[in-house]
Amino acid sequence: MILGTGSSAFIPKISGVELEGVFSLKTLDDAIHIKKFIHNNNCRKAIIVGAGFIGMEMSEAFRMRGIDTAVIDLLPRPAIRWDPEFSKVILEELTRQNVIFSGDTGMVSIEQGKDFRLRLNTTKGEMEADMILIAIGIRPNTKIANDIGLQIGSSGAIQVNFSQGTSKEGVYAVGDCCEVYHRVSHRWVHIPLGDVANKQGRVAGRNIGGGTMIFPGVVGAQSFKLFSLEVAATGLDEAEAIACGYFPVSTIIWGNAFSRMLPGEKRLGVKLVADRASGKLLGAQAVGTIGAVSRINTLSLVLWSGMVLDEIAYVDLAYSPPVGASWDPIHIAAQELMRKL
Amino acid sequence: MILGTGSSAFIPKISGVELEGVFSLKTLDDAIHIKKFIHNNNCRKAIIVGAGFIGMEMSEAFRMRGIDTAVIDLLPRPAIRWDPEFSKVILEELTRQNVIFSGDTGMVSIEQGKDFRLRLNTTKGEMEADMILIAIGIRPNTKIANDIGLQIGSSGAIQVNFSQGTSKEGVYAVGDCCEVYHRVSHRWVHIPLGDVANKQGRVAGRNIGGGTMIFPGVVGAQSFKLFSLEVAATGLDEAEAIACGYFPVSTIIWGNAFSRMLPGEKRLGVKLVADRASGKLLGAQAVGTIGAVSRINTLSLVLWSGMVLDEIAYVDLAYSPPVGASWDPIHIAAQELMRKL
Repeated sequence: MILGTGSSAFIPKISGVELEGVFSLKTLDDAIHIKKFIHNNNCRKAIIVGAGFIGMEMSEAFRMRGIDTAVIDLLPRPAIRWDPEFSKVILEELTRQNVIFSGDTGMVSIEQGKDFRLRLNTTKGEMEADMILIAIGIRPNTKIANDIGLQIGSSGAIQVNFSQGTSKEGVYAVGDCCEVYHRVSHRWVHIPLGDVANKQGRVAGRNIGGGTMIFPGVVGAQSFKLFSLEVAATGLDEAEAIACGYFPVSTIIWGNAFSRMLPGEKRLGVKLVADRASGKLLGAQAVGTIGAVSRINTLSLVLWSGMVLDEIAYVDLAYSPPVGASWDPIHIAAQELMRKL
Repeated sequence: MILGTGSSAFIPKISGVELEGVFSLKTLDDAIHIKKFIHNNNCRKAIIVGAGFIGMEMSEAFRMRGIDTAVIDLLPRPAIRWDPEFSKVILEELTRQNVIFSGDTGMVSIEQGKDFRLRLNTTKGEMEADMILIAIGIRPNTKIANDIGLQIGSSGAIQVNFSQGTSKEGVYAVGDCCEVYHRVSHRWVHIPLGDVANKQGRVAGRNIGGGTMIFPGVVGAQSFKLFSLEVAATGLDEAEAIACGYFPVSTIIWGNAFSRMLPGEKRLGVKLVADRASGKLLGAQAVGTIGAVSRINTLSLVLWSGMVLDEIAYVDLAYSPPVGASWDPIHIAAQELMRKL
């Protein structure tokens, strides 16, 4: 048996979340309902609660439909997983695209509105809109797992091993409902992403079919697009690194996605986090109009194989002025961070 | 002492190469002379001899100036380092951009032309143009090295060690004049590229200054842009792999630079070469309007750390529909090639 019970959007128990026009976005059906609702009600104004991946991507989707969009979050900055310096760039992009962001703002309740269908009462006052999207995270669906007595990991998701087997022989679990091994923190974590689910499904299928295959884990590579920005990260941030017992040092550099020799500067910010004790890279973040995901994928391979900064600073990348500089932002950041070890 | 004597464009000893309007392109002065010549003579037609990096890049530069451009090469295909399937894409791009390519064609002599300044006699007949660019490779400048008795490697470039030291104590060499360690073939080779020279220079400087630093070598990452195409490669091709004693198998897949879920297909070809005996990746090539260099850089890190296909097929990359698919072309190619092991 394979459990692929997935995850559900987390909806807080506040009054009014059941009102028509309040949505979460997890399934294809959710997306279809939102689209229909916008069309049928000629929505002009939306509030998004939560400034994570879904909140950021949906702010772009709403603006593309010409809908006035506001995003609120309990945390002070959008995309909190990224460095404050990068959150600032993300915030500037939101502002440029007429998305209003309000940080340190919590939901209190939802009720019928006066000028618009719905009113959202927040810790910072009231707002009205035609619709409200709640995107404050998801929870693994573990009811069946609990019912049949499977071990649940400390992350709250189903505990699995390298073959995707659970604590009960013959029972496998894959996708958003289960944990995954993190190759940098060396812990089992809950990173519910579509590409991870795809891979786990294939591994479990192979093993059930009599083959032998292990899922080697993840390094935490992730990305989203926000209007003209690519935002990407991999590995650990400083707080996660400290929690693992590492001694993180970090640096941020601003370089160009392409060579300085060519017109049309494309600014690219790269942050590296390394361990002072071992010199190993622990994590990376990048933000820019182009080239951010490319660098994060390359650095994900660095994390995968456990390389130290000395090597990263001189690693061989495909150089040609239109597509990169002889010293790539990856090299420059690694050299800068070496000085802090 | 550091030797940074560089390399020189190779000019064959045929009659007429000394005529005005015949150029090679190696230095900044060469570029300035070419630009001036085009301007002063209102050039309308150019012939490029050699369809390597320089020949390809200059065909774009000439066409951007509105100059009719023909490229000839002794070899049957442009950019011969790439798979015939990719050469075909490159040839299609040249044709779309009105660059005429003639393969299996050798230079015989150059003389004064009738309708244009110069006539190039080739093994396939005569051609006329206002200017001729000879771009058939470079040779390391080793005269000084020979004069002082330094060991020359089998590639014809100066032999160096991991600290950039030559066979004479206290004498270092860096850049196009010397060899470099190839981490996949485990041989010392001559790969004269700007980024390698930059790194070697820094390593030699550190060691001369009393520090301790080694240059860890290259994996052969390289790229060029040809009009709307990115063309990139890393590691070994099949012939090189066989010469090293490996047992190469390869596959080419055509995927999308981004996810299939979004409109605007961006075709991306990825070729992987692996060793049947060990399952290790040996080389990769990619061609597409976007995303080719990004994949090659990621795969360069794979080569750097010596990963096997099983791992590459499930490696963690930053997934998000606008920037990549849940199964990246890298994963798909690795899975396809696993079946051939």
